[in-house]
Amino acid sequence: MIPLFGKWEVGFGNSTYFCSTTEPMSIDNSKHYFSSDFKLGILGGGQLGKMLLYETRKFDIHTVVMDASEDAPCKIACNEFVLGNLMDFDAVYNLGKQVDVLTIEIENVNVDALEKLEEEGIKVFPPTKALRIIQNKAQQKLFYVDKGIPTAEFHRFAYKSEIEDSIANGGMDFPFIWKAARFGYDGQGVKVVRKLEDLNGLPDGECIAEELIDFKNELAVIVARSVSGEVKTYPVVEMEFHPEANQVEYVICPARIDTKVAQKAQEIALLVADKIKHVGLLAVELFQTQDDKILVNEVAPRPHNSGHYSIEASYTNQFEQHIRAILDLPMGNTRSKVAGIMVNLVGAEGYTGDVVYENMTDILKLEGVTPHIYGKKHTRPFRKMGHVTIVNADVDEARKIAQQVKETIKVISK
Amino acid sequence: MIPLFGKWEVGFGNSTYFCSTTEPMSIDNSKHYFSSDFKLGILGGGQLGKMLLYETRKFDIHTVVMDASEDAPCKIACNEFVLGNLMDFDAVYNLGKQVDVLTIEIENVNVDALEKLEEEGIKVFPPTKALRIIQNKAQQKLFYVDKGIPTAEFHRFAYKSEIEDSIANGGMDFPFIWKAARFGYDGQGVKVVRKLEDLNGLPDGECIAEELIDFKNELAVIVARSVSGEVKTYPVVEMEFHPEANQVEYVICPARIDTKVAQKAQEIALLVADKIKHVGLLAVELFQTQDDKILVNEVAPRPHNSGHYSIEASYTNQFEQHIRAILDLPMGNTRSKVAGIMVNLVGAEGYTGDVVYENMTDILKLEGVTPHIYGKKHTRPFRKMGHVTIVNADVDEARKIAQQVKETIKVISK
Repeated sequence: MIPLFGKWEVGFGNSTYFCSTTEPMSIDNSKHYFSSDFKLGILGGGQLGKMLLYETRKFDIHTVVMDASEDAPCKIACNEFVLGNLMDFDAVYNLGKQVDVLTIEIENVNVDALEKLEEEGIKVFPPTKALRIIQNKAQQKLFYVDKGIPTAEFHRFAYKSEIEDSIANGGMDFPFIWKAARFGYDGQGVKVVRKLEDLNGLPDGECIAEELIDFKNELAVIVARSVSGEVKTYPVVEMEFHPEANQVEYVICPARIDTKVAQKAQEIALLVADKIKHVGLLAVELFQTQDDKILVNEVAPRPHNSGHYSIEASYTNQFEQHIRAILDLPMGNTRSKVAGIMVNLVGAEGYTGDVVYENMTDILKLEGVTPHIYGKKHTRPFRKMGHVTIVNADVDEARKIAQQVKETIKVISK
Repeated sequence: MIPLFGKWEVGFGNSTYFCSTTEPMSIDNSKHYFSSDFKLGILGGGQLGKMLLYETRKFDIHTVVMDASEDAPCKIACNEFVLGNLMDFDAVYNLGKQVDVLTIEIENVNVDALEKLEEEGIKVFPPTKALRIIQNKAQQKLFYVDKGIPTAEFHRFAYKSEIEDSIANGGMDFPFIWKAARFGYDGQGVKVVRKLEDLNGLPDGECIAEELIDFKNELAVIVARSVSGEVKTYPVVEMEFHPEANQVEYVICPARIDTKVAQKAQEIALLVADKIKHVGLLAVELFQTQDDKILVNEVAPRPHNSGHYSIEASYTNQFEQHIRAILDLPMGNTRSKVAGIMVNLVGAEGYTGDVVYENMTDILKLEGVTPHIYGKKHTRPFRKMGHVTIVNADVDEARKIAQQVKETIKVISK
């Protein structure tokens, strides 16, 4: 593949350009992947991995998945399943030694083991340098500042107690967002702090206190960057969050925003992917401020909830694109065939136990509706149990149907 | 679901109507299927089953697959795999007793066992009555005649020797198409007979001799019919066959034919599905004659090669639709988001052994190209190893890219 510099595609808000940072694996490596003895390792066996496995099955790529749970959604459809703790050095290292390329579906993994594997010639994507920065939200924020990437103001603290001191000394005002530096997930490790008492009960580890942004929209851009440095962005999506659970309720593609704002969002997402020298998918969550500034909120170095719509709506879905990127295959078309909206299926409040999906028949009657059930047998309030994609030629029509879906389906227990 | 009679949707050539023939399973059965102890049995573990399993994984429906081969593509991604001969009564019966609903991905199965299971209350789709008719091509042809369904003229013979007698007695002329009554598959069991010698080497079992139709187009229509009798048709597709191997080379959706001809094709396909009281998918292969008559060639009671394009092009792909139909869920939208063309990947002549997919990188660079690799480790001339779907807003552009794909990729051996 000959890198082209500065190529810019327009239309449907996707862009592509090249900036080679890593040596291509070979001239034509592709034939070695399909129905061969090539092995792809995946750390994590949750729903993201499950959807990644649809693509490895489609291409008949041999997979080895590691997860700590016997009930992991990935246990079915991988070629080999290894029970292991993703934070355990030996478990990750030993898995990596069995495979040709190693990737992740969750960022909370033992990076020391990944670094050792990289040194020993195992191809690890995302690269561990990128993963180290992303794993720690304080590091992530410092990286943005260092690289001139716009992001919300913040203070970094080694302990929660330092926040209280800083407030006492007038170094900080309410309100702000407290974020644990590590292991935040699905709204865990994030809290809006409006008064001192809101800090009660929060873990006392490394954290940041971030300016509360009065945003017009929360947006996301998924960037796909291959080993050879081919880069493509998906269209900008618009997100609506659940007020309490801080989980995405609707992801709308394309975002109903000004094209200038959309282009700015994509340029900033590309800048992050470039500066971090990423390989694979990078999901960049952004704020559109009231005065149309774009600020980077945080990034995820893997397939992302904000890209699930792509399975039904895009020419190349995010999971296939991740496989293409880390195997140094040509990047697929990131444009959309139709508008797509994703509704998360989270466990209803007040229900804990064996899951029941109520009123599925009613939503399956609606136009362009596809439920995805992650395969978790046990539901609890706000647990991500699945998602529903609504596709339609008209985004406003899709939004209406999405609302009906949300008001109809219930994730409850027996 | 309240049956509506005579509803007819236009646009993109799909139609829907209701004609209840079977009792619905229940008022709302849907909640019992997803992440539950409900079990779906699938007879056959080939590529059609493999693609069916993408959908059972998506819905987290528990599957039990039986196939005679340890290397069956379905062995991965089903919940339970049973090694067994599909023509063996006990194997099929015992599998059926373990599941709630039983379906097939290949029609060559033991129907006596299925009938006993039906009698004992196991839901078997397609219904065995339909399967018996379809399994035997002579029976199929007699059924068409009996029901007034247009089809090519034919003679039925208990033995091949009877063909020779018939020719000797002037009862038949060359050319004609010889078809074995049973176990034809992928061009096996079918031969154009232009002279007496062409009969040499053909098996001496029950067969038909069919008029050789000088057709303008070979078309196919997939009809989906649910337990409750909701019926939808996919758009008419146009097929191009490989001259020697008698395997489909291109499937083009939508067919580039007159809308009147397309509507006639769909009406005849619906007539077949209705008369045969089908449940599940019925793929109806048709001839468009030089004077635009539509004749039924043959049918397949399952997902079909002519519907593979639907994975990328349709709102609801044929595999999800089959699951919806046999579980009595609402039928999904059969319209297309974009035009779709399917290219079969068959083993190249002169290559037998461990498969290698040559020039995959080149086809992955092309717009809207998705390869599907079935996972057969061993290739031989004309063996179906996979397919490639090309989707594009413009069918003619898709056709150009499909040609490039076909001329570029090679399925060879090491």
